[in-house]
Amino acid sequence: MKLLEDRIRRDGTVKPGDVLKVDSFINHQMDVELFEQMAKEFRRLFADRPINKILTIEASGIGIACIVAREFHVPVVFAKKSQSINLDGESYTTKVESFTHKRVYDVIVSKKYLNPEDHILIIDDFMANGCAVEGLIDLIHEAGATVEGVGIAIEKGFQRGGQKIRSQGIRVESLAIVDSMNAETGEIVFRDQPNQS
Amino acid sequence: MKLLEDRIRRDGTVKPGDVLKVDSFINHQMDVELFEQMAKEFRRLFADRPINKILTIEASGIGIACIVAREFHVPVVFAKKSQSINLDGESYTTKVESFTHKRVYDVIVSKKYLNPEDHILIIDDFMANGCAVEGLIDLIHEAGATVEGVGIAIEKGFQRGGQKIRSQGIRVESLAIVDSMNAETGEIVFRDQPNQS
Repeated sequence: MKLLEDRIRRDGTVKPGDVLKVDSFINHQMDVELFEQMAKEFRRLFADRPINKILTIEASGIGIACIVAREFHVPVVFAKKSQSINLDGESYTTKVESFTHKRVYDVIVSKKYLNPEDHILIIDDFMANGCAVEGLIDLIHEAGATVEGVGIAIEKGFQRGGQKIRSQGIRVESLAIVDSMNAETGEIVFRDQPNQS
Repeated sequence: MKLLEDRIRRDGTVKPGDVLKVDSFINHQMDVELFEQMAKEFRRLFADRPINKILTIEASGIGIACIVAREFHVPVVFAKKSQSINLDGESYTTKVESFTHKRVYDVIVSKKYLNPEDHILIIDDFMANGCAVEGLIDLIHEAGATVEGVGIAIEKGFQRGGQKIRSQGIRVESLAIVDSMNAETGEIVFRDQPNQS
């Protein structure tokens, strides 16, 4: 999505260690008008899918997920990160390793909010190694629900997440895929995506 | 706001220990169409204030804050909870005690996203003892910015948060104020608010 790529070029910062900082408009301060344009693009890209629910994971995915949900006229469920779950049998749970925080989280969703008849679009702000998305897919499979697709704002195309999820036959649409970036020059190379606006 | 009170009566559950569960539509599964109606009501209630930014705190405030921000055409900043901050001088920080989790968090916002010229509306899903809102007010004061008001979805009117914040001269609008609730009968008594729809 050209609008998002241009914004990343303008306001994103490449830091050493393959870090792309976009906290002025995506994941600390949030540009909700940009989110609306992104939501319309996700709506267009997944128009053929019978989506009845958005699933995301706290915290920074929630904002985009809500604006996307508004566009699809469906509710959002957000999975909770926890380091101390009560395994009371009332939740679906899985484990996710965080790339940013170098830590393993339990990720949980109440059984009440994922059902076998759900057709779910996963939304998140970032995908790198894909562990968070894999965790959400696990939860959807535990519930016997259907993954209709994965919508990501920014994918790090040089990490293995996108390849891993797509090779499972799951449709992934990332509005910007960074194929390479250079912390010294600040240069960012995006993957060409002819199907996107 | 009658729409929200009716929804709480229908889908909320009163649990022992003054717990009101609204996780089917507010803070686990999120009814974004309800959030839109709430956002319009906040817009009406704060129409006279020159608001240029919404501030909330992760995680469950983010969804409502984004839908409210869309209505006001302003960005959202969410404060991050952390138990291990790098005090690098680049963030405003304060401490918040969580009623739900019986724990003290560091709460941080990057200095880049709160400025003296900001006129801020604080948005959160719940207010009980008011500690989270007090923490956000601290951060705004650290930045030299202006608190234009506080918009809360559900206030527990029998706890001291609302009284504490209002007595500082800060305008607080809670779309539903629970004055009492009974875990045995499930009865919920809302405060009459003639200024609200």
